Amino acid sequence: MARIVQKYGGTSVSNADRIRNVAQRVLSTRSKGNDVVVVVSAMGDTTDHLIALAHQICKNPDEREMDLLLSTGELVSSALLAMALRNIGQEAVSLSGLQAGIKTEARFGRARITSIDPKRIIKELDKGRVVIVAGFQGFTDELDVTTLGRGGSDTTAVALSASLEAARCERFTDVEGVYTADPRIVPEARKLKDISYDEMLELASYGAKVMHPRAVELGGVYNVPIFVASSFNSAPGTLIHGDALMEPGNKLRGIAHDSDMAKVTVLGVPDRPGVAAALFEPMCAAQIRMDTIVQNTSTSGVTDLTFTVAQGDLHKAIQKVEPAIKELGAKGWTSDEKLAKISIVGSAMKKTPGYAARAFQTLYEVGVNIEMLTTSEIRITAIIDKTRVVDATRALHKAFGLDSLDKDQG
Amino acid sequence: MARIVQKYGGTSVSNADRIRNVAQRVLSTRSKGNDVVVVVSAMGDTTDHLIALAHQICKNPDEREMDLLLSTGELVSSALLAMALRNIGQEAVSLSGLQAGIKTEARFGRARITSIDPKRIIKELDKGRVVIVAGFQGFTDELDVTTLGRGGSDTTAVALSASLEAARCERFTDVEGVYTADPRIVPEARKLKDISYDEMLELASYGAKVMHPRAVELGGVYNVPIFVASSFNSAPGTLIHGDALMEPGNKLRGIAHDSDMAKVTVLGVPDRPGVAAALFEPMCAAQIRMDTIVQNTSTSGVTDLTFTVAQGDLHKAIQKVEPAIKELGAKGWTSDEKLAKISIVGSAMKKTPGYAARAFQTLYEVGVNIEMLTTSEIRITAIIDKTRVVDATRALHKAFGLDSLDKDQG
Repeated sequence: MARIVQKYGGTSVSNADRIRNVAQRVLSTRSKGNDVVVVVSAMGDTTDHLIALAHQICKNPDEREMDLLLSTGELVSSALLAMALRNIGQEAVSLSGLQAGIKTEARFGRARITSIDPKRIIKELDKGRVVIVAGFQGFTDELDVTTLGRGGSDTTAVALSASLEAARCERFTDVEGVYTADPRIVPEARKLKDISYDEMLELASYGAKVMHPRAVELGGVYNVPIFVASSFNSAPGTLIHGDALMEPGNKLRGIAHDSDMAKVTVLGVPDRPGVAAALFEPMCAAQIRMDTIVQNTSTSGVTDLTFTVAQGDLHKAIQKVEPAIKELGAKGWTSDEKLAKISIVGSAMKKTPGYAARAFQTLYEVGVNIEMLTTSEIRITAIIDKTRVVDATRALHKAFGLDSLDKDQG
Repeated sequence: MARIVQKYGGTSVSNADRIRNVAQRVLSTRSKGNDVVVVVSAMGDTTDHLIALAHQICKNPDEREMDLLLSTGELVSSALLAMALRNIGQEAVSLSGLQAGIKTEARFGRARITSIDPKRIIKELDKGRVVIVAGFQGFTDELDVTTLGRGGSDTTAVALSASLEAARCERFTDVEGVYTADPRIVPEARKLKDISYDEMLELASYGAKVMHPRAVELGGVYNVPIFVASSFNSAPGTLIHGDALMEPGNKLRGIAHDSDMAKVTVLGVPDRPGVAAALFEPMCAAQIRMDTIVQNTSTSGVTDLTFTVAQGDLHKAIQKVEPAIKELGAKGWTSDEKLAKISIVGSAMKKTPGYAARAFQTLYEVGVNIEMLTTSEIRITAIIDKTRVVDATRALHKAFGLDSLDKDQG
């Protein structure tokens, strides 16, 4: 007897059978007396197909037109799911971002939601209908269609949950929940029963693919409980929610890794104000995302400055940074494109010291060299050689007791 | 230096190369200083593909959802054409039916346009942009997406032309214009330089596939000159316009045929009021379109009543008519599903008698039997055996002098 927002990813609606399967799951939630709003992604590889079509037309498609083009993918899956629900006797209606009242900035390709006016959604719910909303899209003051960029459909679902004051947001995809580590490389990895927004945000930002950090962050801001589970079975998932509900023990929550890292070290940079800005401004302008920046303490007025980027961005990053290197009078640069980052995450770090020391000792014991290091209050990240990710993850998973069940982890 | 609406059909935008070709044609019109609004259909067989997808989900998809689904086809081609224009240096913007202000009834699948508010289109034209409008779609008071049904994109183009007071509506497709007969069966068929709305309406309604009668009719009501030509070459096309501009000679304008005909004769029907209604009401309810209805003069209080339907509807029509036959106490029915209709059309018939006699004589001479006959002020239609269409068309084409050029025909 609650208002529930469900979100199904592209894999979950990739063909007619799967759409019918989703319809059954939605019906089952609705049959328990809940008001159900469903957010869907585009079917399977539809978005990739539309992007390819645009690139057949021209190299750099206009962003406004690209958004109108891409928004059709979610319209198709929404309409099909509404048909499937009606076919099994459940009244349903699909709404575009505009019809659902999802207003955004006029920033095409990566718009942020500015407000949601859910009156049409509420009107349809009041008629006893399931409301299906096309994810990933919104509209501007001018009635132009925008897309929300990465993590867009997750963001739609969480934002709608906040706007509708939903009891919770259920996100179904092809993974069963949040694990202590990637089960493909750590067979002992365990599924978490719950996790806090902060911890999930760190895991997601540092490589756990389960949910986009943007949506997790939004969930935290509006305190929307997010339940992550599989759309293909009924195994219990993971609930992402506020710290208040949790009693963190001494254990970590999980280990994330990301094997798509390269680093550039700029050598002999003069140690004076404005140097970092001069180096990184051109990269920001080219929308190259830097992940970690480390500057060593200056000796004799010069220092080395290292940053990491995705491997695909390495070549472009060097192009952008070279003119600044010359201008600043730095000595030059070196790069390494076979890196990974591995992160341990847990709120427990806040109150208990010694996690860093134990992590370094563990990596040392398995012979993994730490190239760079960054931390937050609840995370420690090491940049290591890409080929050592599996060994490092397994060793840390064991060293921090994540292999064994206990009541902290549920 | 005029406002021009162009419409490109699905074949003309069926792939990236063809979309680029359309962009060049639009640019060339724009470069002459015209304001250009372009209406596009969905790419190639996109609409069929979407319908198939819906039928994978369920047998009878909800009409509202079907409209939202199908409307995406035209959004895709519109966005791609806008990208292609920008890519060759022409500012362009694509608009959905809603963005273009095309308001319709809330009758899904076959909505009629109720009004157009072209302020966004005009605003974009004033910025020097080419405006591309997704054909075939509009929106309701509730902001729901509707489609316009058969001839939808042509109707969008003509309605926009009227609303924008365009100098003319140019409709580009894979045929070069309106011919005196189908050139595939009459090699001597000639392309007409112009034709009146009334004549075109008769030809289109009686089998000429060149343009949907609905759009022709709308053009006539608002006196929008419609130019029909090929999008693949620059051969001169045919202008459909008002009678006032024309000096009809004694010749016919053209011959149309439609080989998809079946007839049902209901035998021994009591000759009293309400009989036709009782017979045809169930067929109307089932949306079976009857084309021609002929009732013979009653002898001894009973009569035979014959009607024609498309061959695909024959079985359903008989199912619908049988209960009424029993109820009315009629004798029974016979059917023939191998029929065609052939029509000669021309305003000249209005002022000159003798066309019917000459047509019957011609058909008699080639041994074609006339099964049924209907006429309008400017058209004579004979229902004949399907296998004789080619002979009949060729004979009529020759008999009425359509093989030879003269200044009447341009």
